[in-house]
Amino acid sequence: MSELRQDATTYDWIIIAKERAKRPDDFKRKTAQVKVPAHDPKCPFCIGNESLTPETTAVFSEDGAWKIRAVPNKFPALTPEGDMVRTEWKFFRKTHGYGRHEIIVETPLHNEIIPFMADGHVENLIKMYRDRYAAFRKDPKVKVIIIFKNYGSEAGTSLEHPHTQIVASPIVPPYIRRKYEVATQYYDNTGRSLHFDIQQAELEDGKRIVASTKHFTVIHPFASHYPFETWIMPKEHKPSFGHITEAEITDLARVLKEVLMKMYLSLDNPDYNVVVNTAPVDDEHKSYYLWHLQIIPRLTQVAGFELGSGMFINVTIPEETAAFMKDFRIV
Amino acid sequence: MSELRQDATTYDWIIIAKERAKRPDDFKRKTAQVKVPAHDPKCPFCIGNESLTPETTAVFSEDGAWKIRAVPNKFPALTPEGDMVRTEWKFFRKTHGYGRHEIIVETPLHNEIIPFMADGHVENLIKMYRDRYAAFRKDPKVKVIIIFKNYGSEAGTSLEHPHTQIVASPIVPPYIRRKYEVATQYYDNTGRSLHFDIQQAELEDGKRIVASTKHFTVIHPFASHYPFETWIMPKEHKPSFGHITEAEITDLARVLKEVLMKMYLSLDNPDYNVVVNTAPVDDEHKSYYLWHLQIIPRLTQVAGFELGSGMFINVTIPEETAAFMKDFRIV
Repeated sequence: MSELRQDATTYDWIIIAKERAKRPDDFKRKTAQVKVPAHDPKCPFCIGNESLTPETTAVFSEDGAWKIRAVPNKFPALTPEGDMVRTEWKFFRKTHGYGRHEIIVETPLHNEIIPFMADGHVENLIKMYRDRYAAFRKDPKVKVIIIFKNYGSEAGTSLEHPHTQIVASPIVPPYIRRKYEVATQYYDNTGRSLHFDIQQAELEDGKRIVASTKHFTVIHPFASHYPFETWIMPKEHKPSFGHITEAEITDLARVLKEVLMKMYLSLDNPDYNVVVNTAPVDDEHKSYYLWHLQIIPRLTQVAGFELGSGMFINVTIPEETAAFMKDFRIV
Repeated sequence: MSELRQDATTYDWIIIAKERAKRPDDFKRKTAQVKVPAHDPKCPFCIGNESLTPETTAVFSEDGAWKIRAVPNKFPALTPEGDMVRTEWKFFRKTHGYGRHEIIVETPLHNEIIPFMADGHVENLIKMYRDRYAAFRKDPKVKVIIIFKNYGSEAGTSLEHPHTQIVASPIVPPYIRRKYEVATQYYDNTGRSLHFDIQQAELEDGKRIVASTKHFTVIHPFASHYPFETWIMPKEHKPSFGHITEAEITDLARVLKEVLMKMYLSLDNPDYNVVVNTAPVDDEHKSYYLWHLQIIPRLTQVAGFELGSGMFINVTIPEETAAFMKDFRIV
């Protein structure tokens, strides 16, 4: 018999399909991996091809050469033009696609992915996330900032060169507003942070903990929507990623590298998304929310049932996948 | 500049990314299609292999041979076992995966897809949907019935043989509840049905109409989440698919065949999902909702931005795709 589990942060119900359950090992890629070169002369993010992208907005350099750089997206989803006035006719409400959309090129090398970067380089990358967040934050029209990464074609990217994206939206979308409302209601009832308390309960329960460091807890959540869905939650209570500290960055770089390396080795380099979940900018100083990183390997397809119901079928058991990842040894 | 459009049924915002916009023709498949045989000796849904599936629960036969049959899913997401009592410890609420999950095998032939079926066969298929809906409806623990179809691997199926699925859930998930709440609020304010009025507004505006028949309107909605997302909406106001009439079934069979044939020809046999959106069973007789079919071709990947924000980026303009499909000629 399968199990229905409720996500306490959204009230979504997840079907943990034990009848269909797959072993963690079943998700290894069936196809051989193509070897990726260190340099691709046609890649707009490779060193030497800087003229193929819009002008750099921020850069981290060493010995006179860039190591990480931020550039406006050449095909932006949102641009800093137009106002936010809504126009409508009957049910058709619209406004300008105001906002910002940048690419953070993570490395000059075409094939240097996060698990193989030096610790210090990943630290600088997270600092770049924080700095671009702070830059976008200054625009008073910006209401939410989404930092995310698409790795591999199943995760929605056609660009091989390691990169992260940052989008500033002028609207708080209902999906984010709702998570925030659930957390606010919990706060109003208890005077505490929902996500923070969930982290404590996960630590106490212990069955879905992948790692626990000085500053972070890594879990496969109780009601994981996806196989091997991973949350990296800070132990210090802050609603916004924008307020991450230097000490946290140092720790997060190691934790993120380790999580991605274990995924790379144990699941044969799966495609995945990373999302930085953070409070809307106007709510950054309210203590209802807890920012956290979410990693979603793209191992299964969302199908008609999920599209029609919003209920997800997870063919793995979070306790099993968490134990598998916890015990996996990087040699 | 891109455009932000609001979906009036969910309040979701969609980015219509004109800078990235693709022409309808850009979505043609790049890979050659594999020829599918009429019979696959290993396929559990092929004629002669009936012993490979659980026992048939409903059948439509002609001349002593089955033409359409319903069988319990061998690997069900939900099963009619256990109660619906919730148990919880701190934030971890769960219950039994009670429910029902059947497969409707659409045809004895391994390669007979809907656009190439006889009109009468598609009518019988829709009658089978209606009949299995009615059968599941009798279980008082069932709260929502989702009929859906996954066509092709991008749409989440590994089974090639044409089939539809029907799942009965004992819980109304928040995603469906929310759509229903938006519609209820509109009804309370106006005394009218939101989806019905949207259909009228689409007909009046005319720019996103693909087809209009006696009983149905086919649109690419104003705030389409996906390229070529298609809604087939009944002109007679009924909240539940369970109450579809014979005359509507006859018309719907033709409309569905035509929509899928145009997709098949113009987009080179894309993978897609079909979802029957219908009111929760306890709300079947309230007039707030309007059942409708939703067809989602799986032409682009949902990526980190969508997963993190719930905002969708649509790289096509619904007015353009609707005009393209409206004008496309089946020869």
